Amino acid sequence: MGSLSDRQGLEKTFSLLDALGIPYEAHVCSAHRTPERASEFAKNAEAEGFGVLIAAAGMAAHLAGAIAARTLLPVIGIPMASGGLGGLDALLSTVQMPPGFPVATVSVGGADNAALLAAQILALSDPGLRERLAAYRQTIIEKTDAADRELRRALGQEE
Amino acid sequence: MGSLSDRQGLEKTFSLLDALGIPYEAHVCSAHRTPERASEFAKNAEAEGFGVLIAAAGMAAHLAGAIAARTLLPVIGIPMASGGLGGLDALLSTVQMPPGFPVATVSVGGADNAALLAAQILALSDPGLRERLAAYRQTIIEKTDAADRELRRALGQEE
Amino acid sequence: MGSLSDRQGLEKTFSLLDALGIPYEAHVCSAHRTPERASEFAKNAEAEGFGVLIAAAGMAAHLAGAIAARTLLPVIGIPMASGGLGGLDALLSTVQMPPGFPVATVSVGGADNAALLAAQILALSDPGLRERLAAYRQTIIEKTDAADRELRRALGQEE
Amino acid sequence: MGSLSDRQGLEKTFSLLDALGIPYEAHVCSAHRTPERASEFAKNAEAEGFGVLIAAAGMAAHLAGAIAARTLLPVIGIPMASGGLGGLDALLSTVQMPPGFPVATVSVGGADNAALLAAQILALSDPGLRERLAAYRQTIIEKTDAADRELRRALGQEE
Amino acid sequence: MGSLSDRQGLEKTFSLLDALGIPYEAHVCSAHRTPERASEFAKNAEAEGFGVLIAAAGMAAHLAGAIAARTLLPVIGIPMASGGLGGLDALLSTVQMPPGFPVATVSVGGADNAALLAAQILALSDPGLRERLAAYRQTIIEKTDAADRELRRALGQEE
Amino acid sequence: MGSLSDRQGLEKTFSLLDALGIPYEAHVCSAHRTPERASEFAKNAEAEGFGVLIAAAGMAAHLAGAIAARTLLPVIGIPMASGGLGGLDALLSTVQMPPGFPVATVSVGGADNAALLAAQILALSDPGLRERLAAYRQTIIEKTDAADRELRRALGQEE
Amino acid sequence: MGSLSDRQGLEKTFSLLDALGIPYEAHVCSAHRTPERASEFAKNAEAEGFGVLIAAAGMAAHLAGAIAARTLLPVIGIPMASGGLGGLDALLSTVQMPPGFPVATVSVGGADNAALLAAQILALSDPGLRERLAAYRQTIIEKTDAADRELRRALGQEE
Amino acid sequence: MGSLSDRQGLEKTFSLLDALGIPYEAHVCSAHRTPERASEFAKNAEAEGFGVLIAAAGMAAHLAGAIAARTLLPVIGIPMASGGLGGLDALLSTVQMPPGFPVATVSVGGADNAALLAAQILALSDPGLRERLAAYRQTIIEKTDAADRELRRALGQEE
Repeated sequence: MGSLSDRQGLEKTFSLLDALGIPYEAHVCSAHRTPERASEFAKNAEAEGFGVLIAAAGMAAHLAGAIAARTLLPVIGIPMASGGLGGLDALLSTVQMPPGFPVATVSVGGADNAALLAAQILALSDPGLRERLAAYRQTIIEKTDAADRELRRALGQEE
Repeated sequence: MGSLSDRQGLEKTFSLLDALGIPYEAHVCSAHRTPERASEFAKNAEAEGFGVLIAAAGMAAHLAGAIAARTLLPVIGIPMASGGLGGLDALLSTVQMPPGFPVATVSVGGADNAALLAAQILALSDPGLRERLAAYRQTIIEKTDAADRELRRALGQEE
Repeated sequence: MGSLSDRQGLEKTFSLLDALGIPYEAHVCSAHRTPERASEFAKNAEAEGFGVLIAAAGMAAHLAGAIAARTLLPVIGIPMASGGLGGLDALLSTVQMPPGFPVATVSVGGADNAALLAAQILALSDPGLRERLAAYRQTIIEKTDAADRELRRALGQEE
Repeated sequence: MGSLSDRQGLEKTFSLLDALGIPYEAHVCSAHRTPERASEFAKNAEAEGFGVLIAAAGMAAHLAGAIAARTLLPVIGIPMASGGLGGLDALLSTVQMPPGFPVATVSVGGADNAALLAAQILALSDPGLRERLAAYRQTIIEKTDAADRELRRALGQEE
Repeated sequence: MGSLSDRQGLEKTFSLLDALGIPYEAHVCSAHRTPERASEFAKNAEAEGFGVLIAAAGMAAHLAGAIAARTLLPVIGIPMASGGLGGLDALLSTVQMPPGFPVATVSVGGADNAALLAAQILALSDPGLRERLAAYRQTIIEKTDAADRELRRALGQEE
Repeated sequence: MGSLSDRQGLEKTFSLLDALGIPYEAHVCSAHRTPERASEFAKNAEAEGFGVLIAAAGMAAHLAGAIAARTLLPVIGIPMASGGLGGLDALLSTVQMPPGFPVATVSVGGADNAALLAAQILALSDPGLRERLAAYRQTIIEKTDAADRELRRALGQEE
Repeated sequence: MGSLSDRQGLEKTFSLLDALGIPYEAHVCSAHRTPERASEFAKNAEAEGFGVLIAAAGMAAHLAGAIAARTLLPVIGIPMASGGLGGLDALLSTVQMPPGFPVATVSVGGADNAALLAAQILALSDPGLRERLAAYRQTIIEKTDAADRELRRALGQEE
Repeated sequence: MGSLSDRQGLEKTFSLLDALGIPYEAHVCSAHRTPERASEFAKNAEAEGFGVLIAAAGMAAHLAGAIAARTLLPVIGIPMASGGLGGLDALLSTVQMPPGFPVATVSVGGADNAALLAAQILALSDPGLRERLAAYRQTIIEKTDAADRELRRALGQEE
């Protein structure tokens, strides 16, 4: 994350990674404030055994791109909303990468989807994770089905 | 791709997948025009041995999301520009996915980056592909360095 | 509705359908979380006697389009605002449908207008409903006329 | 249509209405240039036997709304792009109607979808039209399937 | 004003018209809810002695345009912000008028400027009003000069 | 106009002013390039007998605002489109004036409406001009009615 | 600053200028409310020994441009957010300057960056300031490094 | 510049630097394609005697920010338009820098203003350059005055 103030917005990332049993390292590390540390981190990530990198930043959100420029690992970008532009600045800064350096961008503030996308990528070679992902998705379906029943009950529409 | 008219815009996807030695299947398949075929394709993709799915669509670009709703494989979305909104409609329709169903979105019209992102994901468990990716990235660096020399020559700035 | 959290925003839809004497069924059902249920619902809706379908969703709002892809019934879409983009994402995702699959889109958060549009459509073959609609519209006019008198009184402008 | 210059952009509306066997009347009629004629047309449309009204206009596109204010028939709005804003002005002017007066808005320049939405509405009480609509949709599916085969042939991917 | 809920946002219009000694009539009157009353008002305004008409409306703000279509008096439009789009919808719906029917548009929520623009127009043939306008502008300059001194005092920068 | 390159886009302003018999002076004069001349012009305009000032500029279009800051005459602003933002920059720079200094903004590139708005303002105290304006508006109505007949003839819909 | 209400948003500018030992003068001074004072200030600034001018304004933010038109000193613009457009209006009004009159624009509400940019410019000929800037930047790096350690401690990730 | 394809769009930068007698070095150098070279360049620029750095890039334009993160020299950013978003992506990616790392952003495609801003900064300690800048600005004023006379002649308005 580019700033410690993003931590709360990323709780879902941490809790989902935990729930899915994916080990991770979290850092406050900025493309602008600590460019050398970001650069070193990105260059060493593959050798240190990371599989996927997730970068969350707001405004002119360069962190994901700066990392993507220095690694061949897949990089996931989370545009963080801040200020009056509703995250449009961070979204465009994250997703509009030039040819050669993709950032797998998720929705503005999409902390949960970043974790899930990382899990989907890692699950390609981890059948156990794949099963945990499938189970997690099943809970989403069941929650939605339950919400459907709750709504219909509230409206007096059950059969 | 959602429509055959997207084919030209996706040539870079095909040529990069070819260059990187990644086998692929291409389909014209729409979340709206052929929803059953899209749905079946997505549900069977994992069993049929696909590793990553790439969906390119314009306007209210639902293809990537419709596929992501039906598979645990990573899904990459390419928002295609069409009409007067410059692809903003396709970008928002692709990237703003609800919690649970990420689409790894690349830039508007980012045909090359979609192929490269797929390659980066697959390379996690394919050392040969990882080497080809590294070699490809090296050519990008060299081309940029050559462009730099060309510019400096043109401006009479060589040492 | 795509999520139970949309329920409050749709109260006006329910109360207007009730007021106009239009029977309806409400569901929490998502193009992404429960794609099969959404698909089945859409495919069976005509046979089950539905006349018009209303879909409300936010962000990359695919629900209306996913339903429109699977039925010949008119589908009304309500883009729901959420997050920092003010509903622009949901609006474009709902309205920018490709040729062949219209979604009759109402304003961002337009819960009342969705019910009224459904009523206008159904009233084409239901003279009683047409009369109730006309009466409802009359109340709108009268309320506005009353507001005019109230304003003029408050400003001391009555004749 | 608000201006004769919109005619070319609406050819698809006419040809689809013709193909689906839906009789129609077309007018150049503007909310601003000929407000009285637009008003009279809207007020008399129901009595004259119209079932659905389609309004196409650009910029501050008020035509659909002006008609919707004076009839209980369903009104479909087509935002027409013109100038540098890519139709965003016409889209917002058409879709963001206040409570009480829905306009069933289709995509920017969505001439075909306006005709199809009208057909879907009218088909609710016209089984023959419903069949023609179903047949038309079948041709869309078949064209997409054929495009899929064409693509796969071109890429040498047929089985 | 299109709705009584706009009243608070227009207090500055009323207080400035009062302060400048400009008699006025205020109405709640909508292009959609009470189109006939709006139309009659616009058509009769010149004969009834009005000099300038001010229309304030939000969303697909058609009121100013609907009035401008029916009078040769200058019409001033105030786009009112509501909902998540920050007034962009009302601004474009008000200002993007087609050739022939200008609306003199002021800023989003620009209640004071609408009154002042009306005053500037009326002052062309009313020297007394012109003097009151000049005096009012002088107070703006003086307030700003006072604010400058206050700031400089607070920062300890006075000479 | 801020630049001679705007001249073509303003031909309609000149031709309409000519057609309506309104004498005018045209200048190339910029808020940035020739701020002193713009300032002097604005400050002297009332004394020199001008009634309305029209300012056309693109990008960060300050000309209308700079003039409005220095005169009590009504100032009309025409935002001119240039570059990739479609005139949105010029529109916001022109219309979003702070309290105290209204600019009567017309549509992006609205050269004709600027002339007509000026004419409507001047016609308040010029009955002859008011008649010429009424006649001009009549031609607009007649042209639209003729376009309607032409369309209906072309579609074989005349009675 | 264009208005005293901007003062709070500019506290960071003042505190950073103080911290870096850069003497400054602050004014409330508007391109519209006090155009003459703004103009005089800009024209005299160089002679009075100013090195860099910073202008902060919202909406149709003309202040920076109006100053840039009258001086050869570098002018820094801070677009201030206000109203529903999130500062997009102020950003475009500040940055989209025509050829010849650059405004060095910082982010929406970028009070700190304006001070730092001024410091960077002045440091070109002030080695002491250059050292203080370097020290300040070092504190940014150290704070980010500390935040990194804090995060890792909180997540139980320290080595 | 981030890519050799930007060269044409930057001709004005080169010609103005030449005209003003400012020595410069030009490079093709990308924050993503050649991050190490960009990083080295930025870190060494001050020691090598550069005074101001100008970075031009499109899309998710990170070049200016990446350089600003590694130097205390003033960095000017030129957002280059490319693709359908008209440069809005590049503008936001360039200007919305986080606290601590300003980029002095000029207009989209503002090649000339980047050179002039650099000149204004360097002129603070270079009286000769300051004179050449003043002379250049004088030519702008004279060209505008000449354009004014040309327009007035063309319209038959000379005294």
